[in-house]
Amino acid sequence: MAGGAEIRELTVDLGERSYPILIGAGLLKRTGSLFAERGFPVKSPVLLVADSAVDGLYAGTVEESLKSAGYSVARAVVPSGEKSKSLAAFEELVTAALEAGLDRRSTVIALGGGVVGDLAGFVAASYMRGIRFVQMPTTILAHDSSVGGKVAVNHRLAKNIIGAFHQPEIVLYDLDTLKSLPPRDVRSGYAEMIKHGLIWDESFARWCDENAERLLALEPDALGRGLYEGCRVKSIVVSRDEKENDLRAILNLGHTIGHALEAVSHYGELLHGEAISIGMVGSARLAAKFGYGDELAAETERLLRKFGLPVRIPAGYDTDAIMSAMQHDKKFKEGSMVFVVPKRIGEVEIRGDVPVQWVRDIVEQLKEEAGKP
Amino acid sequence: MAGGAEIRELTVDLGERSYPILIGAGLLKRTGSLFAERGFPVKSPVLLVADSAVDGLYAGTVEESLKSAGYSVARAVVPSGEKSKSLAAFEELVTAALEAGLDRRSTVIALGGGVVGDLAGFVAASYMRGIRFVQMPTTILAHDSSVGGKVAVNHRLAKNIIGAFHQPEIVLYDLDTLKSLPPRDVRSGYAEMIKHGLIWDESFARWCDENAERLLALEPDALGRGLYEGCRVKSIVVSRDEKENDLRAILNLGHTIGHALEAVSHYGELLHGEAISIGMVGSARLAAKFGYGDELAAETERLLRKFGLPVRIPAGYDTDAIMSAMQHDKKFKEGSMVFVVPKRIGEVEIRGDVPVQWVRDIVEQLKEEAGKP
Repeated sequence: MAGGAEIRELTVDLGERSYPILIGAGLLKRTGSLFAERGFPVKSPVLLVADSAVDGLYAGTVEESLKSAGYSVARAVVPSGEKSKSLAAFEELVTAALEAGLDRRSTVIALGGGVVGDLAGFVAASYMRGIRFVQMPTTILAHDSSVGGKVAVNHRLAKNIIGAFHQPEIVLYDLDTLKSLPPRDVRSGYAEMIKHGLIWDESFARWCDENAERLLALEPDALGRGLYEGCRVKSIVVSRDEKENDLRAILNLGHTIGHALEAVSHYGELLHGEAISIGMVGSARLAAKFGYGDELAAETERLLRKFGLPVRIPAGYDTDAIMSAMQHDKKFKEGSMVFVVPKRIGEVEIRGDVPVQWVRDIVEQLKEEAGKP
Repeated sequence: MAGGAEIRELTVDLGERSYPILIGAGLLKRTGSLFAERGFPVKSPVLLVADSAVDGLYAGTVEESLKSAGYSVARAVVPSGEKSKSLAAFEELVTAALEAGLDRRSTVIALGGGVVGDLAGFVAASYMRGIRFVQMPTTILAHDSSVGGKVAVNHRLAKNIIGAFHQPEIVLYDLDTLKSLPPRDVRSGYAEMIKHGLIWDESFARWCDENAERLLALEPDALGRGLYEGCRVKSIVVSRDEKENDLRAILNLGHTIGHALEAVSHYGELLHGEAISIGMVGSARLAAKFGYGDELAAETERLLRKFGLPVRIPAGYDTDAIMSAMQHDKKFKEGSMVFVVPKRIGEVEIRGDVPVQWVRDIVEQLKEEAGKP
C-alpha cells in the first residue's frame, strides 16, 4: 500500500466509552479480524451501510473480510449526499436491520463520509435503543465526524436536529479509500482539518499551511499525519465535554453561517466544508468587530484560499433567508445570538453577545465582494 | 382533592440522572411552580404533548400553571392509541418543537399514558440530541413506563424497536387524572402493577390480591399506595441495571407473548395490559414445564381474573403469525428463545433454553381453552 505502511492509532478518551481510531493503509481487508479480536459476537448479524459512491469500490472487501471471519453481513446502500440524512432513509435502514435479524449485540458499520456516518450512527443509536457502531470513513471531512459520537439526521427546517450521542466501538480509517475522492471533496475535507488548527493548535494550523500541496496531492504521510492531528484536537475537546455543555461548542467555528448557507442551498449546492470555509471567514470578520484586528480575517482567508476553498457567499443567496435559517440553528440560544469568535490563530472564544446586525452586515459584505476580483 | 391529601415521593436512583416521582392529587396545577423550583429556564419554550383523550380535560390546567409561572408553552395533541407511536407522529412533534422555537434548554412534557410518554420521550431524547423531559402520567399503566427512561416508537415489523434511554427530570402523577380512565384501561393498567409484585415482591402481590376491589374502585389511598409500590419495585430493578444488560430483563415477564399478540392484532384490539396478562399466564405455564408445579399458573390466573383481565388468547389469532412475531421481538437472542419464567410468586428467572415447541404448545392451549367455559 503506497507509502502507508505506518498505522497511526489514537484513543478517544471517554471513560468506559473510550475507543480507538486506526489510521493507515490496508485496513478494510482487516475488518473481520479486528472485529474478532475485539470480541464482536459472531452470531449477531452485521449491517454494512455504504455510501453509493464507494459501495462498488470497497464494500465488497469489507464484506468478504467479515465473512471470512465468520460474520453474517447484510448490505445497504445510501445515495450520496446530504439528502440521505432524512428520517425516510433512517426508516429504510431500520427495516433493513430488522429484515437481516440484527439483535442487541449486532453492529452497524458506516462506510463512507459524514452523511453515512451520521445516518447509520443514528440507526445504531436508536435500533433496540442502541447497538454497536463502527465507522469506516472514506472522506477527509469524516475525520471530524468520526470523533465525538454526534449522530443525526436533518429535518426540512433544520440540520442535524434529530440525533443522539452514540460513540463508535472503533474507527477504521483506511487511507487507500481516500484515493477515490473527487478533488472538490478533498478540498472541502480540509476545511474541518484547518478548523481544528484554528480553534486549538497554532502549530498544526501552520503545519497545514506549509503542507498544503502535499495534502492536496494526498501524499500518504502528510495525509496520515493531518488526519491524526485533526482527530487528536477534536478528541481532546470532546473528551473534556462529551455532551456539548460548554467547551465542545468551539468546534462550531464557522458552522452558524455555514449551516445557514447549507440550509438555504437545500443541502446540495455547497459542500459542508465549503460552507464552513465561508463561515470561518465570517467569524474572523466578527473578531475584527470585537477589536481583535483585521489581520486575522486576512490570514484565515489566505489559508483557506490556499486549499482552494471558497471564502465568499456565491451569487443568488438571499440575506433574509440566510438570517432566518440561523434562527433555527442550535447555536441560537435563548433569544441572543451565539457565535464562536477567533481571538488569534489557535484560539477562539464563545460569545453570546453578537448583535444580529453585525452578522447581517458581514453576510451582505461576503455576498457583495463575491462579485469582485 | 378527594382523599388524596398525601403526596407520596419516590426517588429513582440513577446517580446524576436520578429523578423524583411525585404521586398525589392536585399536582397538575402546581406544574409551573414545580418547574420554577427546579430551575427549568423560563426563557426556553416548553412543548406540552397531550393524548387526545385527556387534552381537553387537563392540558389547559397544565398550560395555565406554566404560563402563570412565566413559561411559554406550545401544545401538541396526539391521537390516542398505539398507532401514534410511529415515526410519522414523531416527525410531526419535531416540527412542532422547531416551530415553537424549542432550544437546548427546553422541556418536552408528556401528558397521557404510555403511548404519549414513549413518543414524546423519544422526541425529548432526540431533539437537538436530547433535551429535558417531564412525564405526567394519566393512566395506571403508565406507572410502569414512567420509571426507567425507556422511550421508543414502533416499526411496522416490531414494537419499540426505535428508541433511546432518556430519563425524565421529574414525574408528576396526579391521581385526579385517573378518574377519567375508562374501566377497561383501569383493569389493563393493573396488569403491570401485578407484574411488579409477581417478579419481585410477594407481599405486594398479596396486597394487590387483598385490595383488588379498592383498587378497581380507584379508592385514592389504595391507588396511591399501589402506584407507589409498583414504581418502587421498578425503580429498584432499573437502578441496578439502567441499560438493560441483565436484571432489567425480568421486567419483561409476560411481554414476549404479549408483544406478539399486540403485533398480530396490529396494536389495537388488545390493550397492552391485557396482552401481557395473557403472556404472564403463558409464562407461568412454562414454569410448570420446567418443573415448578402447576399451582403457580393457577394462582397467577386467579389473581389476574380477579382484576378482570383476560387470561386466554381471543378467537381469530393465528399461531404461526404469533410465533413469527416473536422472532422479531428483542427477547429473541442469538437464535435461542429467551423467556422470563416465574419460580414462585415474587421471584422469576431468565431462561435462554426455552424450546420453541413449548411456546407453540402453550399458545395453542391458550387459544383452545378460550372457547371453553
